[in-house]
Amino acid sequence: MPTINKSYNINNEEKSFKKFTNKTTNEHSTGSSNNDILNEVIKHQVALKSFARIIENYEDLIELDTKQYNLDSLFAMDIGGSLCKIIFYDCNIENFDNNEIKELFNSLKNNIFSTEDYGFSGIRDRYKSIKTKNGCIHFILFETQRVKNAVELIFQNDIIKNIKQISCTGGGSYKFEEYFREHYDIEIKKYDEFKSLLTGLNALLKYSPNESYHYKIDNTIISDKPIPDVYDADKKSIFPYLLVNVGSGVSVLHVKDENTFERVSGSGIGGATFFGLVRALTNINSFDEALQASREGDSSNVNMLVGDIYGGEYQSFNLPAEMVASFFGKFAKNGTMDKASDADICNALLVMITNNVGQVAYLNAMRYNLTKIYFSGNFLRSNVIAMKALAKAIHFWSHGEIQAHFLKHEGYFGALGTFFLNNLSK
Amino acid sequence: MPTINKSYNINNEEKSFKKFTNKTTNEHSTGSSNNDILNEVIKHQVALKSFARIIENYEDLIELDTKQYNLDSLFAMDIGGSLCKIIFYDCNIENFDNNEIKELFNSLKNNIFSTEDYGFSGIRDRYKSIKTKNGCIHFILFETQRVKNAVELIFQNDIIKNIKQISCTGGGSYKFEEYFREHYDIEIKKYDEFKSLLTGLNALLKYSPNESYHYKIDNTIISDKPIPDVYDADKKSIFPYLLVNVGSGVSVLHVKDENTFERVSGSGIGGATFFGLVRALTNINSFDEALQASREGDSSNVNMLVGDIYGGEYQSFNLPAEMVASFFGKFAKNGTMDKASDADICNALLVMITNNVGQVAYLNAMRYNLTKIYFSGNFLRSNVIAMKALAKAIHFWSHGEIQAHFLKHEGYFGALGTFFLNNLSK
Repeated sequence: MPTINKSYNINNEEKSFKKFTNKTTNEHSTGSSNNDILNEVIKHQVALKSFARIIENYEDLIELDTKQYNLDSLFAMDIGGSLCKIIFYDCNIENFDNNEIKELFNSLKNNIFSTEDYGFSGIRDRYKSIKTKNGCIHFILFETQRVKNAVELIFQNDIIKNIKQISCTGGGSYKFEEYFREHYDIEIKKYDEFKSLLTGLNALLKYSPNESYHYKIDNTIISDKPIPDVYDADKKSIFPYLLVNVGSGVSVLHVKDENTFERVSGSGIGGATFFGLVRALTNINSFDEALQASREGDSSNVNMLVGDIYGGEYQSFNLPAEMVASFFGKFAKNGTMDKASDADICNALLVMITNNVGQVAYLNAMRYNLTKIYFSGNFLRSNVIAMKALAKAIHFWSHGEIQAHFLKHEGYFGALGTFFLNNLSK
Repeated sequence: MPTINKSYNINNEEKSFKKFTNKTTNEHSTGSSNNDILNEVIKHQVALKSFARIIENYEDLIELDTKQYNLDSLFAMDIGGSLCKIIFYDCNIENFDNNEIKELFNSLKNNIFSTEDYGFSGIRDRYKSIKTKNGCIHFILFETQRVKNAVELIFQNDIIKNIKQISCTGGGSYKFEEYFREHYDIEIKKYDEFKSLLTGLNALLKYSPNESYHYKIDNTIISDKPIPDVYDADKKSIFPYLLVNVGSGVSVLHVKDENTFERVSGSGIGGATFFGLVRALTNINSFDEALQASREGDSSNVNMLVGDIYGGEYQSFNLPAEMVASFFGKFAKNGTMDKASDADICNALLVMITNNVGQVAYLNAMRYNLTKIYFSGNFLRSNVIAMKALAKAIHFWSHGEIQAHFLKHEGYFGALGTFFLNNLSK
């Protein structure tokens, strides 16, 4: 998902949403009101913002030695197939006993906090920041194809010279290792992707009420707003769970306890499949525009429905007429493609991929007898339509036995876990 | 899959294959030799042809009263989302005691057997015909969008007037009911789709050695030729099994015994998804051309591989560099689409859809503790590349515990089962 959704940032959502919709409404105008859509996204983000997000005992969790003489431990990165996630810890600099470092740190902060947009693709997710006793954890996102640019925009020259090592996870920690060494004389300290992911997630599930939320479903009616999960102060009920991480691709982890997990499944049909096919099939060229279009589209112009085959429902097996029999099945017939708009195609792709992720998740939850599924990863970033579809699908298939849970820090757990692991291991 | 693969028909494979490849080689020429590909398809079909295919006790199985005064019971149809399958039973007409019907029957036979191609899309699958004690069952395929044409080509005017009722299954038995009544005064006698499918399949598994076959896999090496399953004359070992029917969409049935089954799962990512996306993304316009192209394509120009993210394998979790992380993930980045040919795209689509079907099949087999999966449906018609991919995927995920089985009559079981049910129920 190389283009980052800047328009739904809670900080400036209305302004940039309008800018965005001005660009697109002419192309995919349908009956749905843009105000409704704007309202839904804002409501979702305001609801998340209102969740408590203070890690009271964060300083117990990691023993960060702020008296050190370098800035290395304040950063962590997770360089994935599409997106590069960066953690910056703004700690209390009074603890620094080196004046040169203090100055550099102040200049770094000025640079980072002077804006929320960095270059073409960078963004700071302000509403996701986490306060700790002595500081604040910040979350920054770049496209992986602009990671070199990111380094220069965030760190700038003076800082780079004072960084010896950056803790890093994701495939990019291998792929860009040589580049960092050659260009900046920075060593990449590598952390395993899944271990980081789970360290970050488990920490927030344990210490940050309420990181996770769900949607309430009555029959087929889904609650409008996300509902925070009940925070278990005793941390007894966290495990076991199934984690379904939807980034460029999909990984499915069976998490048994704090220290035991297994990658039990995965799928190559993920977030980059969605955006790759959007780009190949439509004139839409940004991820947020594709999400917006998918809200407006009608995929019955694209998909072959049970009703198209039966002329109605398939009664004996309770398959309703509007159920999808074959995604993109209408396109298999002559004279069909002209009838479908870009928005219709985006909707079909989003539902196809979301449904498939939901099915793989559900079947794995059944297999390991789990009643709790967490969905993480940046495919779900501001992607209310996908989250609601997942929630409904899991509810439907499991007859309400299994609940889909979503996470405020969606795709940041790998970077966050790397940050924790790096400081814990000192 | 609206265009029917005529080129791989065993009867005229070389001639039509050449005609076909002449059309396409310029567009997707790669290093692979067309002769190799031709040889593989021929080898596959010759191997299947050599399997015994006589139902010795067919006359016990159905009690067909050939002395009846109409031709109705000699036909059965299965009208699906993409394809219409027709059964014609060529029985011993000496049993007919009505001369007018005898004459009509002879004219019908002359019409059907004078060719193997009917109109634009119709084909008779000669090498799939099944000899019985007193006759032969024939298998004919049309595109569903040409079903009206099919009726006129097969039955012709005189015959239609003498047909009062046709037994039929699939969604089209509902959708086209009115049309048959109004235009031909023919009643559609409807049979449930899954019941027909299983009646046809179970009959051939029990009475037709060897309907089913598999591929032998040693590590990652798959046998070149299909290997007939051992025929169990006692019929004890048929049940239970998982049936994965891949037509336009996918249905997954847990078959417990002769009379007990459940539709436990399904997927909207099926055969018509493949061909619909082929048509939308490439200049290829026929199903067989798409299959051919997919053999020649290199999907690493389309998919994001583990190696693209890591720069190599992801060692700790044993994910090899060439493993797909995200289908169509490369297209999510700028400047990538021009590098991919139509053949590359066809290959990516075929592998994406086949892998996904395999995963849904495997997870359901695990869930119901089944070690035998049968794959049916016309997506697998002459689709050796998909069958081998399924066989390898199931073997890999299950560590050899679960075996994928394929079926000579791929997509015809619904029509065949309807034919059996219609005659049994008399």
